[in-house]
Amino acid sequence: MTSGGRIAVDAMGGDHAPEAVVRGAVLAVRQGIPVTLVGDTARLAPLIPDGVQVPIVHASDVVGMEESAVGAVRRRPDSSLRVALQLLADGKASAVVSCGNTGALLVGAVLTVGVLEVVERPPIATVLPRSDGGQLVLLDVGANVDCRAEQLACFALLGAAWAEVLGIESPRVGVLSNGHEHGKGNALARETLALVQELSVRGVGFVEPSSAFAGACDVLVCDGFVGNAIVKAVEGAADVVTHLLGQQIQSSLSARAGALLMKGAFEGFQRAIRWDSYGGGLLLGTKGVVVAAHGRSNEAAVAAAIDMAHRAARDGLVANLQSRLGALGAPRRTP
Amino acid sequence: MTSGGRIAVDAMGGDHAPEAVVRGAVLAVRQGIPVTLVGDTARLAPLIPDGVQVPIVHASDVVGMEESAVGAVRRRPDSSLRVALQLLADGKASAVVSCGNTGALLVGAVLTVGVLEVVERPPIATVLPRSDGGQLVLLDVGANVDCRAEQLACFALLGAAWAEVLGIESPRVGVLSNGHEHGKGNALARETLALVQELSVRGVGFVEPSSAFAGACDVLVCDGFVGNAIVKAVEGAADVVTHLLGQQIQSSLSARAGALLMKGAFEGFQRAIRWDSYGGGLLLGTKGVVVAAHGRSNEAAVAAAIDMAHRAARDGLVANLQSRLGALGAPRRTP
Repeated sequence: MTSGGRIAVDAMGGDHAPEAVVRGAVLAVRQGIPVTLVGDTARLAPLIPDGVQVPIVHASDVVGMEESAVGAVRRRPDSSLRVALQLLADGKASAVVSCGNTGALLVGAVLTVGVLEVVERPPIATVLPRSDGGQLVLLDVGANVDCRAEQLACFALLGAAWAEVLGIESPRVGVLSNGHEHGKGNALARETLALVQELSVRGVGFVEPSSAFAGACDVLVCDGFVGNAIVKAVEGAADVVTHLLGQQIQSSLSARAGALLMKGAFEGFQRAIRWDSYGGGLLLGTKGVVVAAHGRSNEAAVAAAIDMAHRAARDGLVANLQSRLGALGAPRRTP
Repeated sequence: MTSGGRIAVDAMGGDHAPEAVVRGAVLAVRQGIPVTLVGDTARLAPLIPDGVQVPIVHASDVVGMEESAVGAVRRRPDSSLRVALQLLADGKASAVVSCGNTGALLVGAVLTVGVLEVVERPPIATVLPRSDGGQLVLLDVGANVDCRAEQLACFALLGAAWAEVLGIESPRVGVLSNGHEHGKGNALARETLALVQELSVRGVGFVEPSSAFAGACDVLVCDGFVGNAIVKAVEGAADVVTHLLGQQIQSSLSARAGALLMKGAFEGFQRAIRWDSYGGGLLLGTKGVVVAAHGRSNEAAVAAAIDMAHRAARDGLVANLQSRLGALGAPRRTP
C-alpha cells in the first residue's frame, strides 16, 4: 500500500450521503488533498462543481446503515464500501474514509485489507481534548461491542502506539473503570487490568472518565459499547450546555450585549468543542489507514476525516504502529 | 418507616468527611430539614456551630471507601453507614444519605432496609437536564457493574415509576445502545430490549445517549458500569468545556469585557450544569429512601442530597413506587 496516494472516499455511506460526503471531499480537494470518490457515477458526477478535479471509481451497490455487518460485506462485493477498501488493498489508494455502516467497515477492512500480527479485531480510536490542555486517546469507541479481556489488552497496545505517533512520549494507559481503587471495575475491567499490567506499556491502573478528561492518562481503554456511550454522552451533554448557555444569554440585556462582545471567543470555543472536527475515529491495527467518520457527518466533518486519513497515511502510521507494537511487546495471552 | 421524620446522614462517609458532610447537614438544617448525624460523637460535636440543633447518634466504626462492600457491611455493624440504615429500618429516620462507599451502601440497604418485591438488586438513578428542557432519568449509574438482562428490565420498571413520581406522564423508556437500529447493541442490550418489550412500560427501543439528551426518551436504562462511565464522562467534559471557554475569554479584551457583562448569565449556566446540584443518586427499589451522594461531595452537594432525600420521603416515594410497580406489572422473567 502506498503512503502518498489518493484517499478513497466511500461516497455512498452515511446519513447525508452522497451530497454531504461529496461536498466534504471537494473541501478536502481544495485544501490540496488528492481524493477518489467511490460510488454510483451517475449520482456523484452531477454533485461535483465545475473546475474541481475528483476522479470517481464506480460502485453499483451500497451497504445500508442498518444491515448486519458480516452479511452486508459478503453479499455486496460491488458496494462502495468494499470497492473503496479494495483500492486500498491493491495499493491504488493510501487510505479509506467512510461515514457508512461502521460494523461493515470493520469487517470489510479485516477481510480486504487485513490486520497486523497481534490484532484480532481492530478497535476505533478517537482523540478528545482534556482540561489540562492535553489529548486523550479513547478506544474502542464503537467497533467491538462485546469484547474479551485479551482484546482490550491489545487495544491498550494499539492506543499506546497511536499516542506515540501523535507525539505523546511514554503515554500513560488507563483501563476505564467506575473508580480508581483496587476492587472496582466490572469483571471485564478487572481481568483487563491484570493483562495490561503484564504488557510493556506504562499502565496507570483503573481510571474514571472524569479523571481521564482531567489528565490522569493519555490513553483510555474500554470496550466499544462503553466507549461509544461515552462519546455520544459527551456529544449530547455539549448540546445541553450550549442550549443552557443560550437560554441564560437571552434572559438579560447585558448578557446579550456581552455575548456580542464575546462573539469571537464563542466561535473559538465552539470549534474546540466540536468533537466532529476531530475527524471521526481511526481503525487501529489494520494494514492500511481506515477512518470511520460519524454516520451523521456534515461536510466539515467529512473534510476533517479525509484530512486525518491523509496525515496518517503520509506519516506512515501503519509501519509506525507495526514497529512500535513489536517494541512494546505483544500481550502474553493473545489468542 | 415514617415519612415525616429525620434524615439520617452518614457523617463519616466520603472523601471530605466529616467536615464537608457536617457543613452540608448544617446548611440543610438551616433550610428547615430535620437531620440526625451518625458517626463519632467526639469528632462531630465540635464541628457543629453554636446555636444549631443537630442530634448525633454515635457510631464507633467507619466503612472505608476502598473496602469490599459485602465484607465491610458484615464486619462493621457499628459503622456510621450501618447505624444510619438501622435508624431507617427501625422507623427512627425517614431517609438515609451517605457519600461513603456506594457498594457498601447498596449491600447494607438490601440487608438492613430490604427491597420491594420485584427488585433483586436496587439500581442508583440520577436525573440529568436535556437540551429540550426536559429531564432524563438515567439508571443504573453505579450500583451494579455486572448485570443480567432481567435486572436491567427491572431497572426499566423502577425508572418508569420514578419518572412518574417526578411528574413525567407515561414516560418513554429507552435501552441504552450504540445505535437505534435493530441489530445494534451488545448481547446484554439486545436481551434487555426483548424483555422490556414484554413489560407494560412505554418502550421506545434502543436509544443512544446523544439522542436521550436531546429528548428521545425520559428514562434510559443501562448497567451500572456503563451508567457510571456516562455520568463521569459528562462531568469531565463539562470541566473541559469550562476550561476552553475560560481560555477563549482570556484571549481578547472585548471578550473579557463581554464576560463581565455576562457574569449573571454564566452563574446561572454554571448552576444548571453542576450535576452535583442534582443531589446525587437515589437507590431505587429499597423499602426506604436511600440517597447515594458522590464520594467527592462538597457541602453544597451534601445539602442537595439531603434535600432530595427529604422530598422523596415527604412525598411517600416508596409507597408510590410500590403501587406503580404493581400497576406497571412485574417483568415476566424476574428470577
